Amino acid sequence: MNIQNIPSWDDIIDASLRISGYIHRTPVLTSNHLNSLSGSFLFFKCENFQKVGAFKARGALNAVLKLSGEHAASGVATHSSGNHAAALALAASIRNIPAYIVMPSNAPKVKVEAVRSYGGIISFCEPTLAAREEGLNKITKETGAVFIPPYNHPDIICGQGTAAKEFLEEIPDLDVIMAPVGGGGLLSGTAIAAKAMSPDIKVIAGEPENANDAFLSFTSGQLIPSVNPQTIADGLKTSLGDLTFKIILEKTDAILTVSEDEIIHAMRLIWERMKIIIEPSCAVPFAAVLANKSLFEGKKVGIILSGGNVDLDSLPWL
Amino acid sequence: MNIQNIPSWDDIIDASLRISGYIHRTPVLTSNHLNSLSGSFLFFKCENFQKVGAFKARGALNAVLKLSGEHAASGVATHSSGNHAAALALAASIRNIPAYIVMPSNAPKVKVEAVRSYGGIISFCEPTLAAREEGLNKITKETGAVFIPPYNHPDIICGQGTAAKEFLEEIPDLDVIMAPVGGGGLLSGTAIAAKAMSPDIKVIAGEPENANDAFLSFTSGQLIPSVNPQTIADGLKTSLGDLTFKIILEKTDAILTVSEDEIIHAMRLIWERMKIIIEPSCAVPFAAVLANKSLFEGKKVGIILSGGNVDLDSLPWL
Repeated sequence: MNIQNIPSWDDIIDASLRISGYIHRTPVLTSNHLNSLSGSFLFFKCENFQKVGAFKARGALNAVLKLSGEHAASGVATHSSGNHAAALALAASIRNIPAYIVMPSNAPKVKVEAVRSYGGIISFCEPTLAAREEGLNKITKETGAVFIPPYNHPDIICGQGTAAKEFLEEIPDLDVIMAPVGGGGLLSGTAIAAKAMSPDIKVIAGEPENANDAFLSFTSGQLIPSVNPQTIADGLKTSLGDLTFKIILEKTDAILTVSEDEIIHAMRLIWERMKIIIEPSCAVPFAAVLANKSLFEGKKVGIILSGGNVDLDSLPWL
Repeated sequence: MNIQNIPSWDDIIDASLRISGYIHRTPVLTSNHLNSLSGSFLFFKCENFQKVGAFKARGALNAVLKLSGEHAASGVATHSSGNHAAALALAASIRNIPAYIVMPSNAPKVKVEAVRSYGGIISFCEPTLAAREEGLNKITKETGAVFIPPYNHPDIICGQGTAAKEFLEEIPDLDVIMAPVGGGGLLSGTAIAAKAMSPDIKVIAGEPENANDAFLSFTSGQLIPSVNPQTIADGLKTSLGDLTFKIILEKTDAILTVSEDEIIHAMRLIWERMKIIIEPSCAVPFAAVLANKSLFEGKKVGIILSGGNVDLDSLPWL
């Protein structure tokens, strides 16, 4: 694959205009208790309240709404067991085109139901990457649907970057902006938007120790994918793509890793103290703040809460 | 006890001015999915995001801030295993006076910690009403602290009524306003405020079938306390007081009861769809809407979400 050019701030402004009628401008919440606990001033951008319960609605909508009528006519397709699948189904339903979703046969029932509720057409496959890719190839050939990847694509990155744009419009003087990093779509979009709007801001990611491909890649300067990582932060198991890696290397200031226990503790604190539901992946940047308090002391820290899709029958502390 | 006069709308305005610097003006949230499901237009006033995680902060602050300096000097006291205890401790800490809280020895650890975190001075007693009242009498005699009751008091009622005041300031054209009913402090304050601001509005309460003293009292016109009711909605086990009963009889339009299963289903729906944490008591009015859809069809229905203090180690659907 050829490495593509890094999307520009103007591309994010365009994305924002394109999708703003279809997404929630999510609220920014604060908590005195969590400020005391961390020693910093924390602002939480609640993408757990976003359509489909995650920031993923932004990227999928931008990519789908940007397709020409001719290009979009046969629908869109992806393989995903997570929030991108539901987001793509939502985006396709808004354009009134089909969304073909290849899902592993062991995908959580709640995720399957979410995709169905937005009218997505699901094909199940064996739970391996090879089977998922094969299933996707078959469907795109049969239907002519356009593949919309989950993160390593400029339109996805620009869509995700609109969350940081809204965040800094609301709280312009953040010292730091944070996002979790899995495939890197949210982090790279955040970095482009934040550095354009606020050149001195620090862009810092949180990543699970158990899926630390971004940390290793960032530190070594070489793209090092992780192999079958195991973490409670199921949205962060994916590895960086070449485009997201390039952007992150250029525009991110640090990647901090946290343990599984730190993720679960941070998730529970947000549930208990803020009375909002976040998924484990979403707790990772806040966990990184708690594990590195001196780094953030007295600073205004903006944290993008990425999503709130949790299986309520199986909570990590039970 | 002599039945007191019903507080006026002016008293609620005074309460609002008195406490507004110390409480959150909580947000009003909506959900397209829950609108579709119910066939009505639902607005949720999020007192689960209030200080101490419940509307109780409003009443306790109004009562404590209204005390004269001389009267307040020896502190305040109550017996409670729930949100009123934490609310009173918060209010006392703001006035820099002691709060003496008598709690049953089996009170949930999370509630005990909440009271301690606001500096409340706890005395444990046997888990019976007699022991709690005896403990409270002993402490008020020893310390001279003023007893602040949890609901059957005009200052508490007026404080709780400020939630409805904010709600109707934000959404003035509600057809219906709803609250849960336990001791009736929130419901009676809501009714006074709502009927003053919007004379045609319907005030409707939700109550657990298993703790239906308000329903029986309202229907019969006689105050009928419940005896040791068992319900998942632990905040609604208390019975009406003489003052709250008088107000509810005069100003409430209906009390709808719901089953335990309906409460748990409604609670889980709000967690899943709105990504916010509410306690079981808080789900009761929404459960009543779902159980009586035709009554609310096409109407703008405001629901006060009363609180979000849940033991995350023990969820009712697990």
